[in-house]
Amino acid sequence: MIGGRRPIKGRKPADRRVRVERPHSAFFRYTGPGQMVAKPAASVALTPAGRFLDRTRAILFGRPLASEEEIGERLSKRKALAIFSSDAISSSAYATEEILRVLLVAGASALLFSVEVSIAIAILLAVVSVSYRQVCQAYPSGGGAYVVARTNLAPIMGLIAAAALLIDYVMTVAVSTAAAIAQIQSVIPEAYDYRIVIAFISISLITVANLRGLRESGNIFAVPTYLFVGLALSIIAIGAINILGGTVVQAVPQPDAVPFPDPPEALGILLLLKAFAGGSVALTGVEAIANGVPAFKRPESKNAANTMTAMAVLLAILFIGLTVFAVNYGIRPTEPGGASVVALAAEAAFGEGSGLFVLFAASTALILFLAANTSFNAFPRLAAILAEDGYMPRQFSFRGDRLAYSWGIVLLAAIAFLLLWAFGGDTQALIPLYSVGVFVCFTVSQVGMVRHWLTQRSAGWRWRMTVNATGAVLTAVVLGIVVFEKFEAGAYLIVIIVPILVGMMVFVHRQYDRSRKELAVRPELVFEALHREERVVVPIPGVTRAVIQAINVARSIDDDVRAVYITEVPESAVQVRADFERQIPGIPLVVVESPYRALVGPLLAYLDVLDAAWPPDQEPPITFVVIPEYVARHWWERILYNQAAKRLRSVLLGRPLTVVVNVPYRREDPALFDQAIGGKRGPD
Amino acid sequence: MIGGRRPIKGRKPADRRVRVERPHSAFFRYTGPGQMVAKPAASVALTPAGRFLDRTRAILFGRPLASEEEIGERLSKRKALAIFSSDAISSSAYATEEILRVLLVAGASALLFSVEVSIAIAILLAVVSVSYRQVCQAYPSGGGAYVVARTNLAPIMGLIAAAALLIDYVMTVAVSTAAAIAQIQSVIPEAYDYRIVIAFISISLITVANLRGLRESGNIFAVPTYLFVGLALSIIAIGAINILGGTVVQAVPQPDAVPFPDPPEALGILLLLKAFAGGSVALTGVEAIANGVPAFKRPESKNAANTMTAMAVLLAILFIGLTVFAVNYGIRPTEPGGASVVALAAEAAFGEGSGLFVLFAASTALILFLAANTSFNAFPRLAAILAEDGYMPRQFSFRGDRLAYSWGIVLLAAIAFLLLWAFGGDTQALIPLYSVGVFVCFTVSQVGMVRHWLTQRSAGWRWRMTVNATGAVLTAVVLGIVVFEKFEAGAYLIVIIVPILVGMMVFVHRQYDRSRKELAVRPELVFEALHREERVVVPIPGVTRAVIQAINVARSIDDDVRAVYITEVPESAVQVRADFERQIPGIPLVVVESPYRALVGPLLAYLDVLDAAWPPDQEPPITFVVIPEYVARHWWERILYNQAAKRLRSVLLGRPLTVVVNVPYRREDPALFDQAIGGKRGPD
Repeated sequence: MIGGRRPIKGRKPADRRVRVERPHSAFFRYTGPGQMVAKPAASVALTPAGRFLDRTRAILFGRPLASEEEIGERLSKRKALAIFSSDAISSSAYATEEILRVLLVAGASALLFSVEVSIAIAILLAVVSVSYRQVCQAYPSGGGAYVVARTNLAPIMGLIAAAALLIDYVMTVAVSTAAAIAQIQSVIPEAYDYRIVIAFISISLITVANLRGLRESGNIFAVPTYLFVGLALSIIAIGAINILGGTVVQAVPQPDAVPFPDPPEALGILLLLKAFAGGSVALTGVEAIANGVPAFKRPESKNAANTMTAMAVLLAILFIGLTVFAVNYGIRPTEPGGASVVALAAEAAFGEGSGLFVLFAASTALILFLAANTSFNAFPRLAAILAEDGYMPRQFSFRGDRLAYSWGIVLLAAIAFLLLWAFGGDTQALIPLYSVGVFVCFTVSQVGMVRHWLTQRSAGWRWRMTVNATGAVLTAVVLGIVVFEKFEAGAYLIVIIVPILVGMMVFVHRQYDRSRKELAVRPELVFEALHREERVVVPIPGVTRAVIQAINVARSIDDDVRAVYITEVPESAVQVRADFERQIPGIPLVVVESPYRALVGPLLAYLDVLDAAWPPDQEPPITFVVIPEYVARHWWERILYNQAAKRLRSVLLGRPLTVVVNVPYRREDPALFDQAIGGKRGPD
Repeated sequence: MIGGRRPIKGRKPADRRVRVERPHSAFFRYTGPGQMVAKPAASVALTPAGRFLDRTRAILFGRPLASEEEIGERLSKRKALAIFSSDAISSSAYATEEILRVLLVAGASALLFSVEVSIAIAILLAVVSVSYRQVCQAYPSGGGAYVVARTNLAPIMGLIAAAALLIDYVMTVAVSTAAAIAQIQSVIPEAYDYRIVIAFISISLITVANLRGLRESGNIFAVPTYLFVGLALSIIAIGAINILGGTVVQAVPQPDAVPFPDPPEALGILLLLKAFAGGSVALTGVEAIANGVPAFKRPESKNAANTMTAMAVLLAILFIGLTVFAVNYGIRPTEPGGASVVALAAEAAFGEGSGLFVLFAASTALILFLAANTSFNAFPRLAAILAEDGYMPRQFSFRGDRLAYSWGIVLLAAIAFLLLWAFGGDTQALIPLYSVGVFVCFTVSQVGMVRHWLTQRSAGWRWRMTVNATGAVLTAVVLGIVVFEKFEAGAYLIVIIVPILVGMMVFVHRQYDRSRKELAVRPELVFEALHREERVVVPIPGVTRAVIQAINVARSIDDDVRAVYITEVPESAVQVRADFERQIPGIPLVVVESPYRALVGPLLAYLDVLDAAWPPDQEPPITFVVIPEYVARHWWERILYNQAAKRLRSVLLGRPLTVVVNVPYRREDPALFDQAIGGKRGPD
C-alpha cells in the first residue's frame, strides 16, 4: 500500500468536520428513516469547471428556484398582458396591410371597404375572445386547445390541436422576427444585408431571457409593448382629430406603392372574403392566454379571463383605428422592400423622420420580437404537457433550474431560426400556413367547449354553450375561407405537416406505453437475493495505470478475472504479455490477433466462446466487462480519448447477461488511484 | 427460480454442438496458450439489424479483407495512372485558360505568348516530376512531403507540409467538383440550378466508391481518364494536322468572350510572371503518386517512379498541345457562365454539337470528378500517418473492414461539401489558396530531399541532390511568384490556416504525449490483489423489471447495496417505497426529495454524504453506481430512453473512486432476465 488515508476531494462548500459528525446537514434535511429533502447546496457543481458553469448560468439565468417559489414567478395581469398579448397585439402591425393588398386589385375605391372588413374581423375577434374567456375559466391548468380537445372530444383531436399549436408557435417566432427586421429596415435600409445575423442575435436574446424564467420576461418585455400601444393609440387619436376636423393631409403616394391594376377587378364577395381571410391574421396569438393560465397570479382563471378581454379590446381598437387612419390618409401598401403601412401611418401622423416616427418604428420592431416571445412561453409548456402525457420525449418535461422548460425553449429557438435561415429571412410564404394553424386550434377548442358544457351542465351552461357554439361555427367558416383562398399559397402544407406530427406523437406514445408494459412487475412477485455465477473480462490496450485500476476493480467484483488484449500487430503482443504477466500476476491474459483490424467483433466472439465453454448443466454466468477509460477534463478531449471504449460499450449493452463497468482514470486524482491500485516493488 | 436453463441466444452462424465441444473453432484459430487469431466469422454481427447492416455494407463496400489480402488490393501501373493522375492531368482542362485570362489584358497579340508560358511551366513540371521520382524511390512507404520534411528537416516542417497537403486535398475535391459541374453546365445549362445537389451526389458517390476500397476505384475510374486523354490527344492531333496543313478555321469569337481592354496593358515581365503563376495550377496533383507509393504493386518504388514519369509526359503534352491549339484557333476565355477554353477547343476540333464534343465534355467532367478522387486516396492515408504519429485523433488510424481509412474519407467528403455549399458551388476564390498550398509542399519536400542526400550519400547522391536542389529552388521561386501575384486574391489565407492546423496537430500530440506519460506504469512495480471495501448504490426510477435486474447485479457485486429514489413529487415516494420494500426485501431504500427538480446534484450529494459517514480511520470504499438502462432497439429510441442515465453516467465518470455499472434491460431477452431476476410469490 502506498501512503496512508488521503482526504476525500470533491464538494467544497461543506465543512469537513461538520460533514463527519452530521453528514446530512450540509446538503439534506433529514425527514424520516431513509427519507430526506435536498437543499440547494446539493445541486452545487463538483468540479471547478462545473462551478464556473453554475456561476455563469446564475448570472445569465438567475439563481435556481424551488418548486414552492414558483408562485412568486407568477405574472400580474399587467405583466401578463405584455407577455401574452404581444403576439396578438403586434398583428395589428400587419393585418391592415394584408386587407389593403387584397382590395387594391379592385381599384382605389375598393380600399374604402377595408374598414368594413376590419370591423367584421373585430366581431370575429370578440366572439373568439369571449369563447376563450370560458376556456380560461373551465381549464385553469392551461393547455388550451390540446387539453380541451383531448378531454372533451378524443385524444386524436387533442393531438391535431397540439400539432396545429406547435406549428403556430414556431411560425409566430419566425414570422414575427422577420416582420420585426422589416421594421428595422424601414428606418435603416442597410439592416437588410444583416437580417440573418439580426435574426440570430434577437432569437438568442429571447432564448436567454426565457431560460432565465418568467418574471424577468415580464420586466424586460412590458415597456416596449406599452410603448407600442401608446404610440399606436396616439396615431389613431391624431387621425381621429384630423378626420373629424376635416384637416386630413392625404399622404403623397410612395414611389414604390403597389400600382392599381387597369382595369380594376370587380369588387365581388369573393374578393371581400379573400380580404377577410388575409386580415384574419390579426387573430393569431389570441389563444396564448388560455394556454398560459397557470402562469397568472391567483385567482388564475379570473385574472386570465380579464386579461383576455383587455387584450381583445385593445387589439380591436388598434386594428380598426389603424385601418380607418390608413384609408382616410390614402396610404397604400408598397412593393416588397418598401415601408410598411403602419410605418407610413406613423409618418403621416408624426411627420417624416420625426423622433416619434423613429420611436414608433423601434417599438413596432420590439413588440414583434416580443410576439416571438409569446411562443417561448407557450411552446415549452405545451411540449411539457405533451411529454407528461407521453406524446413527446420525456426530456421535454425535465425542468431547468429556473423552472423553465429548457428543452422546449431551445428546440423552438432552433427550429424557428432554421426556418428563417432556410427562407433567407423572408417568411411571407409561411403566413398562410400560420393562419390555417391558428384557426384549426380555434375551431377544435370551441367544438370541445361545446361538448364540455353538454357534459358538465354547470350553472349557465346553456348560454355558455351558445357562446362557444357561435365561436365554433364562425371560426370553422373562417377556417374554410382561409383554406379555400390560400390553399395553393401554402395552406396545403397543413395537410402534410399535421398528420406527420400527429403520427410522431402517436408513435412516441406507443413506444412509452409498450416499454412501460414490458418493464412492469407483477405486484405479487417478491425478489430475493440470488446466487449467480460471475465472470469478469477486462479488454486492455496495454499495461497502463488505467488498466491496473480496471483490473483491481475487476478483482473486487469477482475472483474470475481475465484480461483480453486484441491487436492487429502480433509483435506488440509479446511485449504486452511479458509486461502484464510480470506486473499483474495471477490474472490470465488472452491475446487475440485480429487480422481484420476489428476490435469489437473479436471481443464479442471471445465472450461467446467463454459462454459456450461454460458447463451446459449450470446457469450461464453474468459477464462483467470492465472497460478502462481515460476521463476527459475538457470537452475537446472527448474527441481524442475513449473512442474505442465508446464503441465497445454501445455494442455490449445489446448483449444478453452482460454488464458494462466503466472504470474512469482521472488525471486529477492519481493519489486516490494509487491507493486503489496498490503496488509493491517486484523481485528486481 | 422460474424455469430451467434456457439456450444462450446470440451469434447464429456457429453450430451449438461444435461450440460446446470445441468452442474456439468457429471464430478463432488457437495458436498457443492464451493466444488466438480471429477468423472472419468473429466479426459477424450479433443482431438481425447488425447482420442486415453487414450485408448492406458488403453490397456497398465489398467483403472485408484481411491484412494479408492487402497486397491483392495493390494497384497496377495502368490503374495507378488513372487513380493518381486524374488530379494532375485534369488540370490541363483549366490551366491554359488561367494563362489566357491573364494575358488578354495585353491584347490579342499577347495571347501568343501563352505557348512560351506553357512551355516554361512544362519545364518546371519536368523538374518537379524528376524530383518526385526520387522521393518515390527514397520513401517507399509513402507520405510524401510530410514524411520527407519530418525525417530530414524538423517535425515542425513536416507538420507545415502536412497542413499544406491537407488543405491541398480538400481544395482538390472542392475545386475539381465545381469545375466538373461547370463542364456539365456547358452542355446542359439547366444544371446550374442543381449544382449543389449534383455536388452532393457526386461527392457521395466518390465517398462510397472509396469506402469500398482501392481496387474498385481503379476499375471505376480507369475508363473516363483514358477517354479524356484519348479525346484530348485527338483534339491536339486534329489541330496539328490543320496547323501544319494551313487549314485552320479560326473560331468565331463567342458573344460572351472576355473583351480585350482598350488600350491594352503593356506586355511586361510582371504580366508574364502572373500568367506563369496562374498556369502553374497545372502542377497541382503531381505529388499524389509520391504520397501513395505503398498502394502500388511490387516493386512499389520503381512502379511509382515510372508512373510519375508517364503522368508528367502525358500532362505536358496535353497542356502544351491544348495551349497551342487554343492560340492557333483564336479561342478566348469567356465571361463567367460561358463555355470553357477546352470545351471551345473541342467544339472547334469536333464540330459544334457533335457526338465527340459531347463525349469530350462528359469525359472532362468525369475526369474532374475523379481528380477529386485522388484526394480520397491521399487524404485518409496522410491522416492515418499523422494519427499514428500522434498528431491527429487516433480514430483516423482505425481502419474499416475494407482497409480504407473510413474516418479520413468521411471527414474529407464532409469538409469539401461544406466548402462547396458555403461558396454556392463557386470555388474560384479558393484557387489561389490551392496553388500556394501545393507549392509549399513542393518546396518543403525538395529541400528535405536535398538534406536526405547530404545525409545518406548513397550511390549517385551528388547528381540526385542537384536534381532536388534545382527542384527546390525552382518551386520556391514559383511559390514566391504565386504568393506575390495572388496574395490578396486568397493566398493570404495560407498564412492563417496553416498555423492553425499546425497548432492543432501540435496540441493533439502534446495531449497524447501527456496522457501516455500519465498512464505509464514504472516497469518494476508489481500489482497484487488488494482488498478494498465496496459499496453499491442503485438510483431507481420506480420498481420495474429493469430496476430488479439492476438490484440483482448490484447484489452480485457486494452485499452493501442501497437503492436511491429521487423525486420532485413527495406523494409518489410513498407508493414506490411500499412497492420496493414489499417486492425487494433486504435492500434499504433512500428517498430523496428534490424540490429543485435536479436529479444529478442530489445523487452526487448523497454519495458524498455516504463517503463522509465512512469511518475516518479506514480506507474509503469504491462506490459502484449501478444504473438500470432500457436498451434501445432502434436509433430513434435513443431519443426516448436513458437520457437521465446518460447524464448520470457522464457526471459520475468524473467522481473519484466511483465506478459506473450499466445494466441493460433488453426487451428481446426477457426470458434470460427472468432467470437473472429470479422471483417467488410473496406471502399474499
